[in-house]
Amino acid sequence: MSDIAKRFAQNPLLKPSDLQPSIEGMKIACLLNPGVFTYDNKTWMLIRVAERPVQKEDTISFPILKETGTMEIIEIKKDDPELMADDPRVIRYKGSDYLTTLSHLRLVCSEDGVHFSQPENYPLLLGSGKWETFGIEDCRVSKLDDTYYLTYTAVSENGVAVGLRTTKNWKQFEQKGLIFPPHNKDCAIFEERINGKYYAFHRPSSVEIGGNYIWLASSPDGIHWGQHQCIVKTREGMWDSARVGAGAAPIKTKDGWLAIYHGANKEHVYCLGAFLLDLHNPGKVLARTEEPIMMPTEDYELHGFFGKVVFTNGHIAHDDEDTITVYYGAADEFICGARFSIQEICSYLK
Amino acid sequence: MSDIAKRFAQNPLLKPSDLQPSIEGMKIACLLNPGVFTYDNKTWMLIRVAERPVQKEDTISFPILKETGTMEIIEIKKDDPELMADDPRVIRYKGSDYLTTLSHLRLVCSEDGVHFSQPENYPLLLGSGKWETFGIEDCRVSKLDDTYYLTYTAVSENGVAVGLRTTKNWKQFEQKGLIFPPHNKDCAIFEERINGKYYAFHRPSSVEIGGNYIWLASSPDGIHWGQHQCIVKTREGMWDSARVGAGAAPIKTKDGWLAIYHGANKEHVYCLGAFLLDLHNPGKVLARTEEPIMMPTEDYELHGFFGKVVFTNGHIAHDDEDTITVYYGAADEFICGARFSIQEICSYLK
Repeated sequence: MSDIAKRFAQNPLLKPSDLQPSIEGMKIACLLNPGVFTYDNKTWMLIRVAERPVQKEDTISFPILKETGTMEIIEIKKDDPELMADDPRVIRYKGSDYLTTLSHLRLVCSEDGVHFSQPENYPLLLGSGKWETFGIEDCRVSKLDDTYYLTYTAVSENGVAVGLRTTKNWKQFEQKGLIFPPHNKDCAIFEERINGKYYAFHRPSSVEIGGNYIWLASSPDGIHWGQHQCIVKTREGMWDSARVGAGAAPIKTKDGWLAIYHGANKEHVYCLGAFLLDLHNPGKVLARTEEPIMMPTEDYELHGFFGKVVFTNGHIAHDDEDTITVYYGAADEFICGARFSIQEICSYLK
Repeated sequence: MSDIAKRFAQNPLLKPSDLQPSIEGMKIACLLNPGVFTYDNKTWMLIRVAERPVQKEDTISFPILKETGTMEIIEIKKDDPELMADDPRVIRYKGSDYLTTLSHLRLVCSEDGVHFSQPENYPLLLGSGKWETFGIEDCRVSKLDDTYYLTYTAVSENGVAVGLRTTKNWKQFEQKGLIFPPHNKDCAIFEERINGKYYAFHRPSSVEIGGNYIWLASSPDGIHWGQHQCIVKTREGMWDSARVGAGAAPIKTKDGWLAIYHGANKEHVYCLGAFLLDLHNPGKVLARTEEPIMMPTEDYELHGFFGKVVFTNGHIAHDDEDTITVYYGAADEFICGARFSIQEICSYLK
């Protein structure tokens, strides 16, 4: 056992009832997986807020966006023989898959990194256009020069892909389209170019041959990507046997790029681990933790919308150069924080 | 019924016994899905040659490549309880998927477009490196300026992805890495830049939400790709209900880019259809055929390694500006040819 996370005593930092739904008639089902960054001398999170209509007794209803941006509510009788609804996250109906909730991204900020609230006059980030009609999720935020790169899961009936938006001021955003086609998630752009090239983690999934592995790609401009290579795979019989995916951008250390990732086993228990990449050739994996560095143990991690989950895609490195604060989604419902010592993480790398 | 293909009387043009295995002890199981191009005033095909060891009675054996390029034969007792081998194309063993055959790409050329033979002093194209240990397949060949772009399916235990090599003389090749990560196939680069950008079809597959659809991407350099968009989807209840994938690069006509694609239904019957894209904005689909323009009807299309398949990824446009010769894989075993009238194809577009 090697859970080396120092969880905040104030956890969970945010729960669904702490925020208002984006529109009337909706209910926030979960807060999930925040992207994290520093801006204007504050700590900011870009939270995934998953909403659904207030449910009636004999139907299941869920929202989707039209390409124009307007919301449509789909309502299905629970006894409809064409409805399959045994997964809390996905509904299958008449041969098509839908999400039970519609996610948008919402900014909260904090002076102390513990108490977060919504700032005034900043927009919600909503799904927009054809590739985001089922919402946008799990955004990583990377800063290069004066630009923030937002890489997020873009979901529509066309598939689950990776979208990119950029901003300098969190009020105006540029849409850069889908940077990885389906099925892909868990994309984080490195916060520094290496030999003039952008690098990113991403996590394609395979319908046959292959699996849910972490890949690396490079780019001349952050928008067009190539040179894909598989760098971290699932490990049979271990805590990360079913899926692995990168967290936020890796942390630059003197020994290499330190990445925190999530892994899940076949029972869908999500834990965190770490791996180290060569500073100059990030396709080269130097080391990886064998045991998780964090696993679901607290009540708010074990029980929620989808229990037994700790999942991170955002952290803040601190001035002492050893501490990082990892913000994470717990049980697919709550936003939490924990501190790690980088040196301690590195001591578990094999 | 609308099969408007004028099949060559000489079909099949090539069958497995017409070529020699690449090394002793191997047997050619199938010839498949040629890329097609003109070079040195001849018609060339780059055929996918799928080989496996001569099989013994009580075992299944199949070859894989090591990263170094050397071949290894894996041999499994047929009564091994961990072996699943009911698909002629894929073997499942101890939790991993393998291919029953190992494919390489082989050049043949012809003066008349009908009688093909292997030219002297041209290399075989073999899988190379970490992402191609299970072989390379179904190559599209596109010519831009004086460079041929070879986009092919690169298969390894890491997944099924799209690799790119370029050549000017078919003797020296440059490896450009994987341009689309798993799960992806059926990539063809347009033979002309549009507003300075490269365009390509590709066919990602989704593990949940989405399907086997044709996507379009663009690129500043042919190597790094972005702006992914889904353009052609499967159609419930029709001949292309289960999967669609692009053939070769589209044909430029005055009305738009004419693309020939394959579709399959849930019974794995593969037919050909066509769609038309806007000349200046190829993300815009102007029309699509409802019925197939070609379907498996001949004995060599109905019966073979995998029957009921016509599949194309190569064609030659002719000087009369109306005729194209489509080369195609039949029943995943034979190489065939057929002529189409472009005008006749277009008359079926809806």
